[in-house]
Amino acid sequence: MTHPSAPRLTNPAGNPLEKELDMSAPRNSPSPSTSSYENAATGSVSLRGVDFAYRDLGPTDGVPLILLIHLAGVLDNWDPRIVDGLAARRRVIAFDNRGVGGSSGSTPDTIEAMARDAVRFIRALGFDQIDLLGLSMGGFVAQVIAADEPRLVRRVILAGTGPAGGPGIDRVPALTIKATLKGTLTRQDPKLSLFFTETANGRRAGLAFLERLKERTLNRDKDISLPSFRAQLKAIKQWGRQAPSDLSAIRQPVLVANGENDRMVPSQNTLDLAARLPQSELVPLYPDAGHGGIFQYHDEFVTRALGFLEA
Amino acid sequence: MTHPSAPRLTNPAGNPLEKELDMSAPRNSPSPSTSSYENAATGSVSLRGVDFAYRDLGPTDGVPLILLIHLAGVLDNWDPRIVDGLAARRRVIAFDNRGVGGSSGSTPDTIEAMARDAVRFIRALGFDQIDLLGLSMGGFVAQVIAADEPRLVRRVILAGTGPAGGPGIDRVPALTIKATLKGTLTRQDPKLSLFFTETANGRRAGLAFLERLKERTLNRDKDISLPSFRAQLKAIKQWGRQAPSDLSAIRQPVLVANGENDRMVPSQNTLDLAARLPQSELVPLYPDAGHGGIFQYHDEFVTRALGFLEA
Repeated sequence: MTHPSAPRLTNPAGNPLEKELDMSAPRNSPSPSTSSYENAATGSVSLRGVDFAYRDLGPTDGVPLILLIHLAGVLDNWDPRIVDGLAARRRVIAFDNRGVGGSSGSTPDTIEAMARDAVRFIRALGFDQIDLLGLSMGGFVAQVIAADEPRLVRRVILAGTGPAGGPGIDRVPALTIKATLKGTLTRQDPKLSLFFTETANGRRAGLAFLERLKERTLNRDKDISLPSFRAQLKAIKQWGRQAPSDLSAIRQPVLVANGENDRMVPSQNTLDLAARLPQSELVPLYPDAGHGGIFQYHDEFVTRALGFLEA
Repeated sequence: MTHPSAPRLTNPAGNPLEKELDMSAPRNSPSPSTSSYENAATGSVSLRGVDFAYRDLGPTDGVPLILLIHLAGVLDNWDPRIVDGLAARRRVIAFDNRGVGGSSGSTPDTIEAMARDAVRFIRALGFDQIDLLGLSMGGFVAQVIAADEPRLVRRVILAGTGPAGGPGIDRVPALTIKATLKGTLTRQDPKLSLFFTETANGRRAGLAFLERLKERTLNRDKDISLPSFRAQLKAIKQWGRQAPSDLSAIRQPVLVANGENDRMVPSQNTLDLAARLPQSELVPLYPDAGHGGIFQYHDEFVTRALGFLEA
C-alpha cells in the first residue's frame, strides 16, 4: 500500500540551500513503505521553478545512493533488478534531471550544468552526504559532482563510462543516431545493439533486460523529448572532446565497472578511470558484455556494489 | 494454394534485352492463382548478378502495373488494400529495387540509377509496355522512367511526390532522421508522424494503416539495410537540389494524388506536377491527410486509379 502524500523527506541539518526550495509548491513524496521499484511512487520536488521527478525506496537510514542515468534515460530505464537489489540494503533515489522525462525545465547541453542541477536536486531533498551511481552519461555527471562537492559525495560507482576526453566518447552521438536509424529499419530496440554484445548470449541478455524494463506498467515516466535528447548528445560530444580531465580531484573511493566489449564508451575508458583515479577499485570487466554490462550481470554487480558501499 | 515454382512469366516478344538475363540462375515466379497480397508468393529474377525480389498478382492479361515504393520501403510496405484493390482488375507487380529488402546488390545513390535498375527489372520480366504507380521516392523514379522510356510506359500514377528541385524535397532526409529519432524515444513508428496528420482522424488512419502492414505474417520481406537507406537519402537530397526538371518530356497521361497536408514532400509539389505535366489529371487533395494520403483514402484512390488506368 502506498501513501503518495506521506512525506518521506527529512531535512536534518536545516540545509542552507533550503531557501532555494519553492516551499509553496506542491511536493509529492514517495511512500516509505515502497518495497519494489516496479511499484515505487513517483514524487516531485519543486526547486527554482523546476519540478524534479524522482523515486525513493529502501531503508530510510544510512547514506542514500543517488542514481544518475544514461543518455535519453528516464526513471523507467533503470533495471529494476539493480534498483531493488541495491534498495534491499540502501536508500536509493532515482530522478529525472532538468528537462528529462517527468522533470520540467529545459535540459542543459553541458555535463557541468547537469551536475549543478543534480546537486541542487540532492540538496533540495535535504541531504548533506550521498553516494553516487553514474551510468554512462550519468557517470560523466557523477565525476563532476564528486570533484566539485568533496563533502557531499562519500563514495562513487561508475559504470560504462569514461573520463572527459576519453577515446571514442565524442563518437557516441553519431553511433547512437546510427543505431537508432538501424533499429527503426529493423524494428529492434537500439539498446540491444548499443548495450549488449551481438553473441547469442549477449542478445539473450539484452532481450531479458528489455523485458525487465517493461515490468512496471502503471504510472510510467514520460519519454525524453527530442530537444532534450539533442541537448544531451551535445553535452556528450563536448565531454568527449574536452582535454583529459585531472582525475586526482576526485578523492573519494570509486568503484569502476563495465562490460569487456563496450562499443559506446569503449571499455578502455573504464580501465583508464581505474588507473587514474586516486582511490579506485576495478570490477573485472564482465565477459561477453558491453555498455549494459551491469544490467547483464545485475546480481554480481549488486553484490559488488553493496560490498563497496558498505566497506 | 500456391505453386512457388510454377513460372508465371511470359516473354511474348523475345525481348532483345533478354540476353541480359542470367538464364542459368534459379528463377522463382509467383503463382498465377494468388488472390491477395497478404498471401502472394515472393518470386525472384536474376539479372546481371542481381536477384530482384517481387510479388505478382491479379489477372495475367492487360498492361501490368509496376509499383515503385517510398524511401526505406520494401514489399511489405505496400498497403494491402491498395494492392488488392488494384489487382482485382489489373496485373500488379511490386518489387524491391537493387540492394533493397530481398533484392541483392548495392543500392544506387541517385534516382536516375534507380530508374535504370527498375527498367532492367521490368524488361527482365519480358514486358514491353507497363503502367507505373510511384509513391514518394518511387514517384521520382517513375518520372525518370516515363521520360526516358516513352514506349515502355503507357500511363503513370504519381502519389505523394514532386518534381526534381521541388520545394522542401531536399529536407526529406533531415526530416526523416528527426522523425525516426523522435519515434524511437516515444516508441512510436515514425511513419505515423511522417505519413499522417496529427489530428485524431489522421492518427486513427495511421494506426489502421500500420495494422494493415502487419497482416502478412508468413514470408515477410527483409528490412532495408542502413547502407541502402543512406544511399536512398542521398538520392532524395540530390533530387531535391536538382534544377527543376522539364516535365514536358513526360508525354504520357499522369494521374497525380496526395494528401492536402504532406509534410515530407510538401503538397505544393503535387499541384506543381499537375500544373506542369502536359497530360495530367489531379485528384483533389485528400482532406486531413498527409504523405500517406493514398493509404488513408485507399478505397477512393483505388477507384480513381483503376478508372484512370482503364480510361
